[in-house]
Amino acid sequence: MGVVVNTNGSWIARRLTSLGFYVDRIIVVRDSRSDVEEEVRRAVEKRIKLLVTTGGLGPTYDDSTASFIASALNRKLVLNKNALELVKKKYESMGVELTSARLKQAYMPEGARVIPNPVGTAPGFIVEMGDTIIVSLPGVPREMKKMFEEYVEKEISRITGYRVASAWLVIRGAEESSIAEIIEEKAREHPEAYIKTHPIVLEDGSFYIRLQVSTASKNYREAEEKARSIALDVKKELCKRGFNAELMDRANNC
Amino acid sequence: MGVVVNTNGSWIARRLTSLGFYVDRIIVVRDSRSDVEEEVRRAVEKRIKLLVTTGGLGPTYDDSTASFIASALNRKLVLNKNALELVKKKYESMGVELTSARLKQAYMPEGARVIPNPVGTAPGFIVEMGDTIIVSLPGVPREMKKMFEEYVEKEISRITGYRVASAWLVIRGAEESSIAEIIEEKAREHPEAYIKTHPIVLEDGSFYIRLQVSTASKNYREAEEKARSIALDVKKELCKRGFNAELMDRANNC
Repeated sequence: MGVVVNTNGSWIARRLTSLGFYVDRIIVVRDSRSDVEEEVRRAVEKRIKLLVTTGGLGPTYDDSTASFIASALNRKLVLNKNALELVKKKYESMGVELTSARLKQAYMPEGARVIPNPVGTAPGFIVEMGDTIIVSLPGVPREMKKMFEEYVEKEISRITGYRVASAWLVIRGAEESSIAEIIEEKAREHPEAYIKTHPIVLEDGSFYIRLQVSTASKNYREAEEKARSIALDVKKELCKRGFNAELMDRANNC
Repeated sequence: MGVVVNTNGSWIARRLTSLGFYVDRIIVVRDSRSDVEEEVRRAVEKRIKLLVTTGGLGPTYDDSTASFIASALNRKLVLNKNALELVKKKYESMGVELTSARLKQAYMPEGARVIPNPVGTAPGFIVEMGDTIIVSLPGVPREMKKMFEEYVEKEISRITGYRVASAWLVIRGAEESSIAEIIEEKAREHPEAYIKTHPIVLEDGSFYIRLQVSTASKNYREAEEKARSIALDVKKELCKRGFNAELMDRANNC
């Protein structure tokens, strides 16, 4: 319904990109069994290596992601002993009763491995199906990020050995369309790089262009140097044609 | 790659919901012909009533949405006379040359109707295929919003006569899980309404719960009254069970 802006999607996409993944899709669906099942099955059929879900793991009646994923995979939803222990401990430490709604958070698809939640009450889980690894995390950004950084990154780093690095140019005083042909030329010249312009409009109506050059390699330093050298080549061409371009150093994390 | 947070998706979802649509998906794909084609064809095959795309209409080499949509629909990409006029006029008024990259913005799928862009250079378009209306807008939020409000809403209002209204409760001093069973009960009692809790965490770590009740009707006042009366019923039950709940008035636009 558009009540919440999906900041989780881009956060995870950025992290996965830096881990060497090519992010295929970000998809938002409703709290609907058939819609979640459709997307989970599509990912498995397309042999997507990694599907990360966020949201729907909590204690409320519309938190049904574990059940939806189980039925998508034709697995039973079972009480996971490790999850039960974590959920019990959490509510004990909070001094509140373990109602059936709260207990629901320990039910997971058969064969799932638990991801502890150091911040909130709902654990996440990892389950594999065919070539696809499904990682299910809560929707609260603070919980999701902590769990991703502390547990998920290690778990999935074995899928790919790649690292991606970006170099950035700042181009001032030019329209995006004025430099389009130069950028296109350079993108064709460097098919190993992902080159993209981002127009940045400031409050006062003024603007500049950020140009991103990304490359991947098994070795991060190597990726970084390659991105930098391609960015410098683009900069050289822009300057030659009379545009004002500067390399942003150490800005690959922006 | 996660560089940009997709605020367009939720903005459009909210607008469409208030126009009586049931929003099926928000999907983010890369600048890839096969990915865009796959999603456009899926929408047409599923007989989705309305597909709104944002982005990829500008003058740069990676702006290819019109071409991707044309090939998804097996239509030619043609120079649209009305679009050409708008694009020409725009660059004339800016006093810059009409390069081939800029001219590209006037190419659209055969049979498309132009949506003028009062803010930027790239016009949008509307094209129909089977039961599906495809609306293509630029990705710059300021341009997209203006075009949606000035042209798209009128064009698509004939698809549905429904209006959706929401009423909101603020619930303080309760965990989401503490009220889960009450909300579940009430949701079952009112299947005509969409009831959802949103936990709001503040900077200082404190939090409250916003509860949303949405209903749709051909008549907005009727939808508003129905949502309000259901929210008041939920409030009554919460208060009876010792929780602190307040109705937020005129907050259905937040």
